[in-house]
Amino acid sequence: VAKKKQERASGPYAIGMDLGGTKILAAVISSEGRIVAEAKLKTKPDEGPEAVIGRMEQAARNAVQKAEIEWKDVLGMGVGAPGPVDPESGIVYHPPNLAGWNEVSLGPRLAKELGVPVFLENDVNLGTLGEHALGAGQGTRDMVGVFVGTGVGGGLILDGELRSGYRYAAAEVGHMIILADGPVCGCGKRGCLESVASRTAIDRDIQLGIAAGRESLITELTGGRLNRLTSGVLAKAWHQGDPLVTEILTKAQWYLGLLTASIVNLIDPEMVIFGGGLVEALSEELLAPIRVTARQYFIQQAGADQVRIVAARLGDYAGVLGGAVLARRRSGEKPIVAKE
Amino acid sequence: VAKKKQERASGPYAIGMDLGGTKILAAVISSEGRIVAEAKLKTKPDEGPEAVIGRMEQAARNAVQKAEIEWKDVLGMGVGAPGPVDPESGIVYHPPNLAGWNEVSLGPRLAKELGVPVFLENDVNLGTLGEHALGAGQGTRDMVGVFVGTGVGGGLILDGELRSGYRYAAAEVGHMIILADGPVCGCGKRGCLESVASRTAIDRDIQLGIAAGRESLITELTGGRLNRLTSGVLAKAWHQGDPLVTEILTKAQWYLGLLTASIVNLIDPEMVIFGGGLVEALSEELLAPIRVTARQYFIQQAGADQVRIVAARLGDYAGVLGGAVLARRRSGEKPIVAKE
Repeated sequence: VAKKKQERASGPYAIGMDLGGTKILAAVISSEGRIVAEAKLKTKPDEGPEAVIGRMEQAARNAVQKAEIEWKDVLGMGVGAPGPVDPESGIVYHPPNLAGWNEVSLGPRLAKELGVPVFLENDVNLGTLGEHALGAGQGTRDMVGVFVGTGVGGGLILDGELRSGYRYAAAEVGHMIILADGPVCGCGKRGCLESVASRTAIDRDIQLGIAAGRESLITELTGGRLNRLTSGVLAKAWHQGDPLVTEILTKAQWYLGLLTASIVNLIDPEMVIFGGGLVEALSEELLAPIRVTARQYFIQQAGADQVRIVAARLGDYAGVLGGAVLARRRSGEKPIVAKE
Repeated sequence: VAKKKQERASGPYAIGMDLGGTKILAAVISSEGRIVAEAKLKTKPDEGPEAVIGRMEQAARNAVQKAEIEWKDVLGMGVGAPGPVDPESGIVYHPPNLAGWNEVSLGPRLAKELGVPVFLENDVNLGTLGEHALGAGQGTRDMVGVFVGTGVGGGLILDGELRSGYRYAAAEVGHMIILADGPVCGCGKRGCLESVASRTAIDRDIQLGIAAGRESLITELTGGRLNRLTSGVLAKAWHQGDPLVTEILTKAQWYLGLLTASIVNLIDPEMVIFGGGLVEALSEELLAPIRVTARQYFIQQAGADQVRIVAARLGDYAGVLGGAVLARRRSGEKPIVAKE
């Protein structure tokens, strides 16, 4: 895992930034991929885009100040935002968890205010890039990231490069259809992976079970407040052998195994990386059955063991590290917005 | 569709060859991508690999003779074989429909006998390459081919290049899981696309319906011999409004729409091409509902119309044309087997 203030941390530096629904994380990252300093601010999305953009700038300035570096030593900033985004123009469209954002020209705005080139990407794509360059996926050529949270997001690395897709809509692994005509998904369709194996689906099934009178430690562990059902609580119930949680997580593992097989049967990558709170809380206990199911469903069994199915390593820092990688790679090529 | 003896047909020439379970098709193809001459021989796979390889050589020689060209003007040969194959070594592993083939060193053998560089690929990959370079996919950057036959095969073009995958196992779209725990598939698992929307699945459902006493024109159209259920017969029954065929094809269309959405939500290509006998027999009548369902399930609706979902154009010639394209591209790079 990335640590602060490593021994070697030389410039030029890049800033990585992750715009989440609840917090903004900015970090100054050295040419070795080390986090030199970080700064965190609340997003407060209800205050609207202008206020949020102001706090993003402030987070970047705070990180640079903490790092005790000069802005002239910052080669650029890579920003992950909830999709859909357009990496070419730096525009954020209508992210579901950033109400009021409507084609916000985020990249150009930040570039103008901060005076450095800014490169925008979908947040999950950026996390995948971070894991590929500096985390669990180092050295792989083709890799797919799967991040299990409220939804299930993904990222695609092919030939060592992040692939955003023709419409910048690639790697939406949560909306691959795995159970045709299955449960209704947040997207309004049915049977997407997200409708059967996201935290939303898991929480829904636990709540339905409890509402129907099934006994579970979850009631006690959350003090009856099921909206406090964190990944940590799920892990605790699982470790104590809670039957409801065991059943529902086992089902999710099975579906995540089928998803992995669908991805592998289409792309045949070298590695599939799983991240997100639940993966962090249960790690190998969650992954082992996913791996078994997935490999059963690989159509080509030859070399099935060579396709590694592993846990992400960078946790909450995947996005900012990916941002720094993006800024470093792209600034050598064609920045979205030239430094003014 | 590709035609023989076009106006312009200059060398150097490439040979494209398609090794099927029932026939071997070889063609001499000009530098303009025109078929100058073709030759066909039966595969007779029961006679074993040696006899089949002998007939492949003969087919190539026949095509060269018919084309009235010299072997010195042939830059190489691209061969499509049923997978799994290893394009690097030219080895064919254990194709289900070529009994007795067990790690046959097909590429090197043909190269040695014919004295030209030989490039081997999975047959469906090669058909996709043909459609991309010379058929419906011309000019696209990222494209996915879906070929609906006994099974459902696919091919993947990214950045204009054929992608075989880390284990040469990419684009097995027939084994993406679309209905978890659904019908048993030919691969032994459940709920793969192939188990609900291949010709095998369609034929199975029609036979089950008829066996259960449902009325259908199929009995009359096949003279009661349901093993004569061709794509042409299905098309005829569909055009006459046969309720059993209509219901079963409608279901297949729905699943193929979901498959297309799964592919698009993962890769976000510019185009998805559908080929195979059923697509050729029904064309737009088959494709239109697939397109509608697919687009409904795209997670990113912006630009949904820009993702083209179209019929393949090259029919039975996709493979040999793809073979010529492969030979032409690779001979400029690194041939599997150098000319001896």
